[in-house]
Amino acid sequence: MSFKEKFKLWVDVVNDALDSFVPEKDTPEKTIYSAMRYSLMAGGKRLRPILAFAVCEILDGDRDEVLPYACAIEMIHTYSLIHDDMPCMDNDDYRRGRLTNHKVYGEGVAVLAGDALLNYAFELMLNYTMQNDNNLKGKVRAMQIIAKASGSSGMIGGQIVDLESEGKKISETTMNYIHKCKTGALIKAPVLAAAAICNASENELERLEEFAEKIGLAFQIKDDILDVEGSLEVMGKPTGSDAVNEKSTFVTLYGIEESKRMLCEITEQAINSLSIFGEKRDFLVQLAKYLVERDN
Amino acid sequence: MSFKEKFKLWVDVVNDALDSFVPEKDTPEKTIYSAMRYSLMAGGKRLRPILAFAVCEILDGDRDEVLPYACAIEMIHTYSLIHDDMPCMDNDDYRRGRLTNHKVYGEGVAVLAGDALLNYAFELMLNYTMQNDNNLKGKVRAMQIIAKASGSSGMIGGQIVDLESEGKKISETTMNYIHKCKTGALIKAPVLAAAAICNASENELERLEEFAEKIGLAFQIKDDILDVEGSLEVMGKPTGSDAVNEKSTFVTLYGIEESKRMLCEITEQAINSLSIFGEKRDFLVQLAKYLVERDN
Repeated sequence: MSFKEKFKLWVDVVNDALDSFVPEKDTPEKTIYSAMRYSLMAGGKRLRPILAFAVCEILDGDRDEVLPYACAIEMIHTYSLIHDDMPCMDNDDYRRGRLTNHKVYGEGVAVLAGDALLNYAFELMLNYTMQNDNNLKGKVRAMQIIAKASGSSGMIGGQIVDLESEGKKISETTMNYIHKCKTGALIKAPVLAAAAICNASENELERLEEFAEKIGLAFQIKDDILDVEGSLEVMGKPTGSDAVNEKSTFVTLYGIEESKRMLCEITEQAINSLSIFGEKRDFLVQLAKYLVERDN
Repeated sequence: MSFKEKFKLWVDVVNDALDSFVPEKDTPEKTIYSAMRYSLMAGGKRLRPILAFAVCEILDGDRDEVLPYACAIEMIHTYSLIHDDMPCMDNDDYRRGRLTNHKVYGEGVAVLAGDALLNYAFELMLNYTMQNDNNLKGKVRAMQIIAKASGSSGMIGGQIVDLESEGKKISETTMNYIHKCKTGALIKAPVLAAAAICNASENELERLEEFAEKIGLAFQIKDDILDVEGSLEVMGKPTGSDAVNEKSTFVTLYGIEESKRMLCEITEQAINSLSIFGEKRDFLVQLAKYLVERDN
């Protein structure tokens, strides 16, 4: 199977699972499920669950065991976008080519839909863990990794510093902090969580962690480049917003050519960190390259 | 020790623990900790953690083992208040006698502070569970109970129906649904979570669950009565808001006298459900009576 075919297959697996985990309901609280689904099922690259699947495969693990934790991370990612798009945060009207959650459901429901997705991420993982209690400690460890990555010393930490930096010139240190936390933490989480569930050795864990850190950084550099060079039709959201918001990005700090050079270098390093896995690393290598070449 | 002395002692234990779990920090993301602490350390009755302690005592459990889960529930309760007070929800300026979180930190930070408290509740429980992995399954079960209670089929389910009912005449069924989910679920959670950690027998669990359901309902009836009869100084928030918002409450549905009669009857039932515990039930009996007699 080609990289693209496998990627598409796995995206379908994730979408089917998300669809069944958060079904439409006809209960008094049905609006919350409708609002959760609106953002959760709006497409998206499913990069985080795919990363978990790929790590599971490289470690000869059982994908069914990784699936709920992978989907939980996608739910956390989605909730962060819903809250981030709100008028009191980034104030965005479009996301993935559709109106943002609060534009459709109103701000009150959008707050609750975000809360509900974050809460359900843990509910889902805990339900699965109770029902499948083999390797219980590995699963609790995976949930711990995910909770830390999405919390105040991870993603939310990055969001708060990002929020406070709006309209200010920020240092390279601050920009790196924002990226590492706001984006990087939740790209690292599926890699480390899958490794915990699939009982990675210490050496394997170290290599995978380095890989995850590098592609997290590469992902952010590429995002900054796309904000300058991408188009509304392909991106599904307005571009050039970093310049309008006077945001410090890799491009504003280093220029577009240097940013592209860094992107290639870091991706190369990411790929090299997987050498111990031999040809089993092929999918992750392709994935790293795909992240560099993507146009949205 | 008298009921009041023990209650105060336990409130101090909870406050000290919350203070150490969410310390002030001098890191880039320090604002998030400051905003989390502003609401978390603003007093409050600490009813939910105290309920967990009392159940632990009745079951001869180890309070240290229950503490992190009890505090996590208080964090979830606090986050729900922060989000509930926002302009897009209940739009309240005061809570516990102080300005609400978004009035002090702004709406963007308030959204993130709520998110961070919900996330940290799970982070805290998972950290403790990893470090103290005796009775691992009981602890995972406790987290599962808490996640369900605070989620879209529990507290958030109640919030969304409450939000959609604003300014509408609602049926008794809908009002009961809102109360059971929005308030009741998170009063039941500490009782059931502590029972799971302390290995309650099936019979004990059944009795405790009945008790928790009854006092949850009594708590809500009392809240509705206080909204009519309470004063701003004692309540720390404006009263009479239910009438202004045309909310259906026990008082608007049944009148004040009938509501008071129901309150006494349900509290009596709650107390009776604990008879199997003999004199060990004394603290919970006093607690049920305190909830009826409280003036805030």
